[in-house]
Amino acid sequence: MLTLYGDRRSGNCYKVELLLHLLERHHHYIEVDILAGDTRTPEFLTRNVNGKIPLLELHRGETLSESNAILHYLADGSDYLPEDPFLRAKVLQWQFFEQYSHEPFIATARFINRYLGLPEERRTEYEAKQEGGNRALRVMEHHLKDHDWLAADQFTIADISLYAYTHVADEGGFALEDYPAVRAWLGRVAAQPKHFDIPRD
Amino acid sequence: MLTLYGDRRSGNCYKVELLLHLLERHHHYIEVDILAGDTRTPEFLTRNVNGKIPLLELHRGETLSESNAILHYLADGSDYLPEDPFLRAKVLQWQFFEQYSHEPFIATARFINRYLGLPEERRTEYEAKQEGGNRALRVMEHHLKDHDWLAADQFTIADISLYAYTHVADEGGFALEDYPAVRAWLGRVAAQPKHFDIPRD
Repeated sequence: MLTLYGDRRSGNCYKVELLLHLLERHHHYIEVDILAGDTRTPEFLTRNVNGKIPLLELHRGETLSESNAILHYLADGSDYLPEDPFLRAKVLQWQFFEQYSHEPFIATARFINRYLGLPEERRTEYEAKQEGGNRALRVMEHHLKDHDWLAADQFTIADISLYAYTHVADEGGFALEDYPAVRAWLGRVAAQPKHFDIPRD
Repeated sequence: MLTLYGDRRSGNCYKVELLLHLLERHHHYIEVDILAGDTRTPEFLTRNVNGKIPLLELHRGETLSESNAILHYLADGSDYLPEDPFLRAKVLQWQFFEQYSHEPFIATARFINRYLGLPEERRTEYEAKQEGGNRALRVMEHHLKDHDWLAADQFTIADISLYAYTHVADEGGFALEDYPAVRAWLGRVAAQPKHFDIPRD
């Protein structure tokens, strides 16, 4: 049995929970409260010394961290990850883009705004995140103008990775009105069978 | 014939050039000067709209960006990337760690210090990078105390990815004296046949 340690407010954790659901993989889910410091306790650090979630624990006790690495492990052999080596590399290209050029701007702006309540001492940082986030959205828009999906001619884990924080980008102050191809793609992802979104409260 | 667009000062480009050399893959190398803005020209943006190197161009004209995605494409089927799905995911775990928790601190501090000459207006940013970089080095030290290699019982592309900016971390102000296991591992990587380092001038 797989065990997923996650926080349901986190897009990185959402990616893994969504894929487990699409694959109908039974698993335990252990809620870890990032804001309460649960990822920094001595006990959690024995599971992941980097102190981050999501974390997947296999039945034999081995652990795997980094959301996109977990997606590859779970999707291997399924329809969500092509066999072709070039397409697999294209999936990775988009996922590394997500972690380097998208998440640090869009997810961080969302975190500052939605979970910290945009405190005055972080407003400059929040505003500085807008440019990088919009740059990432323009890269996506440029590709999605001519393609239905990011990495291949089919829905893959690359789409799951980018969907995670893009579909809640408004919570980080990003207006998707300027990105019609991104919005159309969000609709295609949301229309996948068994899909669910991050809860908004 | 493969074409690699790169800048030899960049650790991300170095990763790809090193692997091509280890694999003895003949390729064209096109020098792209980041500091001169070569990655932001209209011509380069047609190759990679995200404006980043390294960029690999296949003989049929298709392109692949993101250093770690390129490493996976090139290493597939070689000794540098295991077949086992869990070990492949572990390789990815370390590479995503590199791009999210290591490179933005260590590579950026090195860039500010070595290539921009540590200008006064970026000193605060440079100093703020030290904490995150040392955190990443502690995660590596913790693992390498008990393991020869990062992802498997053998040298893999995960080691190439982390070696790239770690072996020049001193150029970003990081003292490796406090990380004996990291230094021993750097030595094991450097002892691989056909190995070369980033040039220091």
